[in-house]
Amino acid sequence: MDFSSDTAAPAHPAVIEAIAAANQGNQPSYGGDEVTARLRRHLSETFETDDLDFWLCASGTASNALALSILCSPIGAIACHEEAHIERDERGAPEFFSGGAKLRLLPGHGGQIDETALRAALAANNPNFVHETPLEALSLTNLTECGTAYPTSKIEQFVSLAKAEGLNAHLDGARLANALASTGASPAEMSWKAGIDVLTLGLTKTGAIGCEIILVFGSKRAEFPQLQARAKRSGHMPPKMRFLAAQAEAMLTDNLWMTLAAKANQTAREFADILCAKPGVTLAYPVDGNEVFCMLPPKIEALIRKAGVKCYPWPGGSYRFVCSWTTLASDLEAMRDLLAES
Amino acid sequence: MDFSSDTAAPAHPAVIEAIAAANQGNQPSYGGDEVTARLRRHLSETFETDDLDFWLCASGTASNALALSILCSPIGAIACHEEAHIERDERGAPEFFSGGAKLRLLPGHGGQIDETALRAALAANNPNFVHETPLEALSLTNLTECGTAYPTSKIEQFVSLAKAEGLNAHLDGARLANALASTGASPAEMSWKAGIDVLTLGLTKTGAIGCEIILVFGSKRAEFPQLQARAKRSGHMPPKMRFLAAQAEAMLTDNLWMTLAAKANQTAREFADILCAKPGVTLAYPVDGNEVFCMLPPKIEALIRKAGVKCYPWPGGSYRFVCSWTTLASDLEAMRDLLAES
Amino acid sequence: MDFSSDTAAPAHPAVIEAIAAANQGNQPSYGGDEVTARLRRHLSETFETDDLDFWLCASGTASNALALSILCSPIGAIACHEEAHIERDERGAPEFFSGGAKLRLLPGHGGQIDETALRAALAANNPNFVHETPLEALSLTNLTECGTAYPTSKIEQFVSLAKAEGLNAHLDGARLANALASTGASPAEMSWKAGIDVLTLGLTKTGAIGCEIILVFGSKRAEFPQLQARAKRSGHMPPKMRFLAAQAEAMLTDNLWMTLAAKANQTAREFADILCAKPGVTLAYPVDGNEVFCMLPPKIEALIRKAGVKCYPWPGGSYRFVCSWTTLASDLEAMRDLLAES
Amino acid sequence: MDFSSDTAAPAHPAVIEAIAAANQGNQPSYGGDEVTARLRRHLSETFETDDLDFWLCASGTASNALALSILCSPIGAIACHEEAHIERDERGAPEFFSGGAKLRLLPGHGGQIDETALRAALAANNPNFVHETPLEALSLTNLTECGTAYPTSKIEQFVSLAKAEGLNAHLDGARLANALASTGASPAEMSWKAGIDVLTLGLTKTGAIGCEIILVFGSKRAEFPQLQARAKRSGHMPPKMRFLAAQAEAMLTDNLWMTLAAKANQTAREFADILCAKPGVTLAYPVDGNEVFCMLPPKIEALIRKAGVKCYPWPGGSYRFVCSWTTLASDLEAMRDLLAES
Repeated sequence: MDFSSDTAAPAHPAVIEAIAAANQGNQPSYGGDEVTARLRRHLSETFETDDLDFWLCASGTASNALALSILCSPIGAIACHEEAHIERDERGAPEFFSGGAKLRLLPGHGGQIDETALRAALAANNPNFVHETPLEALSLTNLTECGTAYPTSKIEQFVSLAKAEGLNAHLDGARLANALASTGASPAEMSWKAGIDVLTLGLTKTGAIGCEIILVFGSKRAEFPQLQARAKRSGHMPPKMRFLAAQAEAMLTDNLWMTLAAKANQTAREFADILCAKPGVTLAYPVDGNEVFCMLPPKIEALIRKAGVKCYPWPGGSYRFVCSWTTLASDLEAMRDLLAES
Repeated sequence: MDFSSDTAAPAHPAVIEAIAAANQGNQPSYGGDEVTARLRRHLSETFETDDLDFWLCASGTASNALALSILCSPIGAIACHEEAHIERDERGAPEFFSGGAKLRLLPGHGGQIDETALRAALAANNPNFVHETPLEALSLTNLTECGTAYPTSKIEQFVSLAKAEGLNAHLDGARLANALASTGASPAEMSWKAGIDVLTLGLTKTGAIGCEIILVFGSKRAEFPQLQARAKRSGHMPPKMRFLAAQAEAMLTDNLWMTLAAKANQTAREFADILCAKPGVTLAYPVDGNEVFCMLPPKIEALIRKAGVKCYPWPGGSYRFVCSWTTLASDLEAMRDLLAES
Repeated sequence: MDFSSDTAAPAHPAVIEAIAAANQGNQPSYGGDEVTARLRRHLSETFETDDLDFWLCASGTASNALALSILCSPIGAIACHEEAHIERDERGAPEFFSGGAKLRLLPGHGGQIDETALRAALAANNPNFVHETPLEALSLTNLTECGTAYPTSKIEQFVSLAKAEGLNAHLDGARLANALASTGASPAEMSWKAGIDVLTLGLTKTGAIGCEIILVFGSKRAEFPQLQARAKRSGHMPPKMRFLAAQAEAMLTDNLWMTLAAKANQTAREFADILCAKPGVTLAYPVDGNEVFCMLPPKIEALIRKAGVKCYPWPGGSYRFVCSWTTLASDLEAMRDLLAES
Repeated sequence: MDFSSDTAAPAHPAVIEAIAAANQGNQPSYGGDEVTARLRRHLSETFETDDLDFWLCASGTASNALALSILCSPIGAIACHEEAHIERDERGAPEFFSGGAKLRLLPGHGGQIDETALRAALAANNPNFVHETPLEALSLTNLTECGTAYPTSKIEQFVSLAKAEGLNAHLDGARLANALASTGASPAEMSWKAGIDVLTLGLTKTGAIGCEIILVFGSKRAEFPQLQARAKRSGHMPPKMRFLAAQAEAMLTDNLWMTLAAKANQTAREFADILCAKPGVTLAYPVDGNEVFCMLPPKIEALIRKAGVKCYPWPGGSYRFVCSWTTLASDLEAMRDLLAES
């Protein structure tokens, strides 16, 4: 039983087929190919606008860092949750790509920034005081690192507060599909309609091999050439770009990404029910997406460990279990059977 | 007729099949998977040693820059040919990944560093003189940017000169297979046996989708954890690493990479013969690999341009034509027919 | 009445005289001069050891950042207090000089790191887990940003804990003299004898024009050439170094620096007594050095503001008043008279 | 006899007096003081315009690198002479401060960029070609590293060519006064009137202790807050700024800087005459300022070495002799006497 991460899962067969289909004849390098051209149309449709530019990247870490590098200068700071992926799990990538920008960490339950803390940080921001590093960007994550989903209204409100102080807005959507499936919001509503300037849309965890899309909206499109140049010099401009585009196209076609995310969410809810049926097991955070964070009694902890169930201990004492599009009913049954032993 | 680049070519079918085959069930992320484990054995065999570590990367630019970042500090300089890919075509990636190291450019015909210039640069190097940036690494490229191949003896000699002054040695092998096929040298002879500390072995141009291997040899393996950390923070640690490993495995199995490179080299030689049969066409550099650089009379230049033949004008006035594993006999015939019109 | 900062004060006359005295004839540039040579002897005496190297710098920010750049790599993190000068007041200098290292912020009352928080951070440190940025250095500040002094025993203990986990130890001593005067510790006891690898010794706030000394002790002296090179490329290698050395020599001669610091400390204590004699005024932190942090009732706050007394509102609601070597008895009397009006 | 460098010379007594005079009472830190306020008026007068901002810095290397950091982005390149100080003698400072920009080296006799080479580099510049690093700035040096002076007309022409391609223009004026004295141009003519965006005006070599002025003209003043922030985080925002301002004020008052430079130039010409009177001695470059570069016959070379005359061997085989404001007639006589021995 492997609940370690949705990145341990294989890719959806449609993604493999798309790669094979893209492998026909010569094609211009660096995104000049036909598949990438088709993808633009898919994205315009999915996001209900032509006012966007996009870049493909195999890495979520790089996608976030590249996005932030055009939203925050080396002498600025990025406000984010203290448990954000960009702070905890990217080995200093934002600092590296931005040329030395700082992260300003904000607290909040369930991976969501506390509104009071955000307001206080924005109120204290003074770009004219040269001694301190001023905030230049706000980075939100949806699905959050604790598996909860910000509703669109909260994204809108936080972005609005940030923009009133002159900040740019980034959304880390490594598991955006799960948040969309959970909240019922559309991709447009959760991104540019809520004021997001740059969205990092992850498809790897949803079912691709390795494919993230950096989407730049509206007036920030003026920075797109800079984004490309930064992608180039960080090794994120693959010559055979068509194979990234093919993955993205497969995922967006017939809304496959949303179907897979909805399935993973549903599986996670069922998994949570199975766990919480045991006395002493409690949810650390609401299960809004495909991740379950539970506090486990020692006896169950020992049982799970002994059985070799793959999952991660999490800061705060809980355990994280991740469901993916491949998690089977039989996996859940196996867990139910295991827990029955306790 | 597309002779623009070997990166415009599709991947070899065996690579696609390997990706499909790797797409089975859950596997540990970040290189803990079975395919990556198998690849280690392939590499030990190919390079005739267990005294190596390796990292997989989809990007040649990143592979070079990561390699150099463990061979040269931010306060050092890297000696390379003035037309080297790391200088001309990577948008400052070595400067970025190293944290500000400098490139010291050396002249030389055909993309090969001039021995006298190298000796002079090494003789002038004084790490104790704080005002100037001392050389800390030598970076060679084989196949060179001009399509010529250094013989192993030259690599050995240059590395030996550099090491005598305390420099580290890097080999950019984006087209290493072509150089090996051309010179008859073995991978081991062209790398660690010649004193190379870190080799960037490209498979993308040879026939993969996007797969480069950074190989760290001998005492420099002590820096391997640093290389991993730098890969992580630059977004070059793909969670689903197995799909990079699968590409590499497919290319190394039964020496497919060498077969494809030898075919591309042979095609290039035939292509050169066709071109040079025309009066006024001369080779700018010897055709050691899969690239042909020609000086073209204006009439032929016009003809080629009119026919929409894809190729690149090159600094110095020549044109570059690249053959890949997919370049067909019919492509050559088409060119022969076209030239017959002149 | 100006209690804004000890950097608003003029330099001690002996410093000006030393500069004039150093202005005789040609002298080798970049530290090869006679004054710098003499300074080495002063420092050996002051720190009771020859096992040190030093570098002179006009800037405290640069001194800290240079020191940290040889103690923490671009892929590591520095543990410090959440209110440390390197975090709050240096506009990202440590991130800049280190090439992208992170600061890990620890809480604690009065500007002193909480022991439990430090132990927890050290216990959680795992340099082998590539996804997270491991701690490589601990940076302490004495006098702290809240005007309190760590006793030598605490420095020793914290450094010892940090070193057991493989960290390097830095001491930001922008107001070291005030801490020494307060605790009675010797310079040696507060630095290398407590395990400090690199000390940033500030003399500017104590009474120089602009002069800080970076002291590198023991085994870390192996990194001294790197420190020099980093100083060079950041513009902190003044050609006419003798004028920095002259300032330092003047301050160390006859222990002038300690005399001035002791005077400033004493003045601050008297100032605190004057303030605290007023009902409703309370100290936010103990007055260990030359800084007084007070909570002020609104009426007194208004009075002070109206009178144009220069001081800083501080995070947490207190006001900071700084005394320097030039703060006069008449300044204190003026404040006593002002408060009498309330 | 010390002709090693003008930085080996002491400061002019007026500079020391100005520092002593500035040492009166408390003054606001970081440039809010009275001396700095007065300096603004001096600069407006000297440069015949109010359309400027300025920053004071003790370091020429930092001044150049800070200036370039607001004229060239991390993904751009700076065109400069291949022997420029920013390339040869600053240990990678421009790369460091800019966050990884590249220097594009241009040839030319006597430290002056060859016009044909400049035109070729500009013609080849293509900011839209993402694979190569485009030129974003031109950096000229006057007096050049070979002691020659560009006439104002040449500065104007080169800047005009560069601006037509969208580049910004920087002038490294570490020895600007010597170039002004030599050409008869006014400070305004040699800077903003010639299209220079940012001038690094050095006073250290002319006679200060350590004082450079970064002058930002016209539309580039929009970047001045960024310059300040970058100065802050690189440790080039001295709290007691008044002491830098005092040096600058002393130098500008009654045109002292020009008087000292003219004297040094005149001494250099006399020195050159003495040297060239010897058979076999030839000038490597014209003596436009205070530096003499000579080819010396072996016999004279040996004589000079034996006598311990301080001077530098220079790339290309010549020797550099630098005169400063303190070089005495007796120094010249001593050299004449020495040469008489040969």
